[in-house]
Amino acid sequence: MDITTLGEFDLIARLTQGLPTHDDIVLGVGDDCAILPLDDKMWLLSTCDSQVEGIHFTLQTSRPEEIGRKALAINVSDIAAMGGEPRYALVSLLLSPQLSLEQVERIYAGLREEAELHQTQIVGGNIASSGGTGLLAIDITLLGRVERGHALLRSGAHVGDMLYVTGTLGDSAAGLYTLLHPEQEYPPTAQESVLAIHRVPRPRVREGRLLSTFAQQGVTALLDISDGLSGDLGHLCERSRVGACIEAAALPLSQAMRAIAQSARQQPLQWALHGGEDYELLFTVAPEHEASVLAALRAATATPISKIGSIRPSEEGMSLRYPDGHQEPLSVQSWDHLRP
Amino acid sequence: MDITTLGEFDLIARLTQGLPTHDDIVLGVGDDCAILPLDDKMWLLSTCDSQVEGIHFTLQTSRPEEIGRKALAINVSDIAAMGGEPRYALVSLLLSPQLSLEQVERIYAGLREEAELHQTQIVGGNIASSGGTGLLAIDITLLGRVERGHALLRSGAHVGDMLYVTGTLGDSAAGLYTLLHPEQEYPPTAQESVLAIHRVPRPRVREGRLLSTFAQQGVTALLDISDGLSGDLGHLCERSRVGACIEAAALPLSQAMRAIAQSARQQPLQWALHGGEDYELLFTVAPEHEASVLAALRAATATPISKIGSIRPSEEGMSLRYPDGHQEPLSVQSWDHLRP
Repeated sequence: MDITTLGEFDLIARLTQGLPTHDDIVLGVGDDCAILPLDDKMWLLSTCDSQVEGIHFTLQTSRPEEIGRKALAINVSDIAAMGGEPRYALVSLLLSPQLSLEQVERIYAGLREEAELHQTQIVGGNIASSGGTGLLAIDITLLGRVERGHALLRSGAHVGDMLYVTGTLGDSAAGLYTLLHPEQEYPPTAQESVLAIHRVPRPRVREGRLLSTFAQQGVTALLDISDGLSGDLGHLCERSRVGACIEAAALPLSQAMRAIAQSARQQPLQWALHGGEDYELLFTVAPEHEASVLAALRAATATPISKIGSIRPSEEGMSLRYPDGHQEPLSVQSWDHLRP
Repeated sequence: MDITTLGEFDLIARLTQGLPTHDDIVLGVGDDCAILPLDDKMWLLSTCDSQVEGIHFTLQTSRPEEIGRKALAINVSDIAAMGGEPRYALVSLLLSPQLSLEQVERIYAGLREEAELHQTQIVGGNIASSGGTGLLAIDITLLGRVERGHALLRSGAHVGDMLYVTGTLGDSAAGLYTLLHPEQEYPPTAQESVLAIHRVPRPRVREGRLLSTFAQQGVTALLDISDGLSGDLGHLCERSRVGACIEAAALPLSQAMRAIAQSARQQPLQWALHGGEDYELLFTVAPEHEASVLAALRAATATPISKIGSIRPSEEGMSLRYPDGHQEPLSVQSWDHLRP
């Protein structure tokens, strides 16, 4: 069997099966971050994610600064997805010898800019050559912290909880679509807007921090949407052993994304459900705490917060309900980094 | 200018120049590990290093298990090089879609084996495809810890300190030589011995831990030899603003390495001075503490410990002295991961 048949998540599950975890680890492989003991007040969060040229970005369609910013931003999003604050980054660069010094310096300048934006310090790293393959990859490990007992996991959702999402969905997919179909024409302002989100996502650290204050009462699960809503909702349902029902009409779609979809004759709902790289937060709230969680979020941020469905019993699986009451199974159609 | 002209270390210096470091960081970019605050008793160490197929290993000349073991071992060596103990690993795999599941599982089995050997837990990771390039790379971030105030840096050597090294030098280079020249014949037992070291280095955690107990009195600087003695001694001299004189006759050479050199008509001294990937520890000891440091090391480990020279004033640079008294400048001829 080759690894593409198995796919990314099954491969990870297979490789890490039965990994020993000693008492001092709060949480190992399987969530957005691992949780390690730090001190009496705080837990240490650690995560790593890589961006590969030709898979996650191309030098033709992103400026080097944007590539650097995105490589860090997606890791910051994993820290946000636990309710934590990012702190220290280690940056491993795999560089093609053909790259110019200017390109590398501009990528790194983007990294430094994004690090400053999140009060994150670059404390280490490594540079290796990709030799004749010409590959460019940026692999970042990010350490963060969260108050003990306040990390939000994928595994805490209960039947009856309400499903919420920050921001809007599908913008990054719309931006990617315009890059993959340059022969088509798009409304320029809308295209600029979705491309900006595709090129440099905005991790929701502030919103995650606020949600973490409700970790012991109110907010039951949290993760970020990197693989697409259907895929990440699937992770949440699997870890929490629940099902979920999404209200199609409740999905937050930006005007820009709708305009691109209309011009491209694509279904905006498909992008919102299955498009990857939104880096918005998906979270569940116990119904009796909805009002207080929402009030706190809205007092702290102007980011749109939308209720998009609810948690259902596991045996119902994931479903999508249309305004006319029609309901259908929601299947995972998200991005797999190993499949072509 | 392209990046190969600049070279790995100048590129890192250029990219990380002027990186802001806030008060809470004990040590940022530039040593074997970064040092971060952990709790009242311990510091957190963090390091990352990658291994790339075709640059650091090939699937033709190493078993997949060995590749996995080495990828972790070189990071463990960086923790040892601060006097710390390894704790948590994050493993980022960049996989060619052409790899078989069996190959990937065997690489990961090697990783897990090496992790267990060092009581290190794999707590996170990431898998990405290298697409059509076919590249295989393993990038690991390793977290460790050391007692506060007991980390050993590259920067503490003083004029008059004695230079020591663990184990023997040049074995890995000899092993690599036999792989690069398969048409030649070598004494089989000797070849097996140097190849084993080349394929899976033995990080000197125990020795580093013992040296760290002398961090406030006796041992002044420590690093591991990954780029070759001349290169890493160069790092020590640069960071400590000193020079050094190496006694050629004092360099510890294994019988196996000598046998390979003789059979290949190569100079064993060159391999010992400039061959990379020994992963032995290089450290400096204040002369008044030599006896106690050595006694403690010899009581705790059977690893050979050799005095190979002394620290000299900065203006003398690095030099090599032969048994006949003849002395010549020692230039850095070590491996640069960006140069062909």
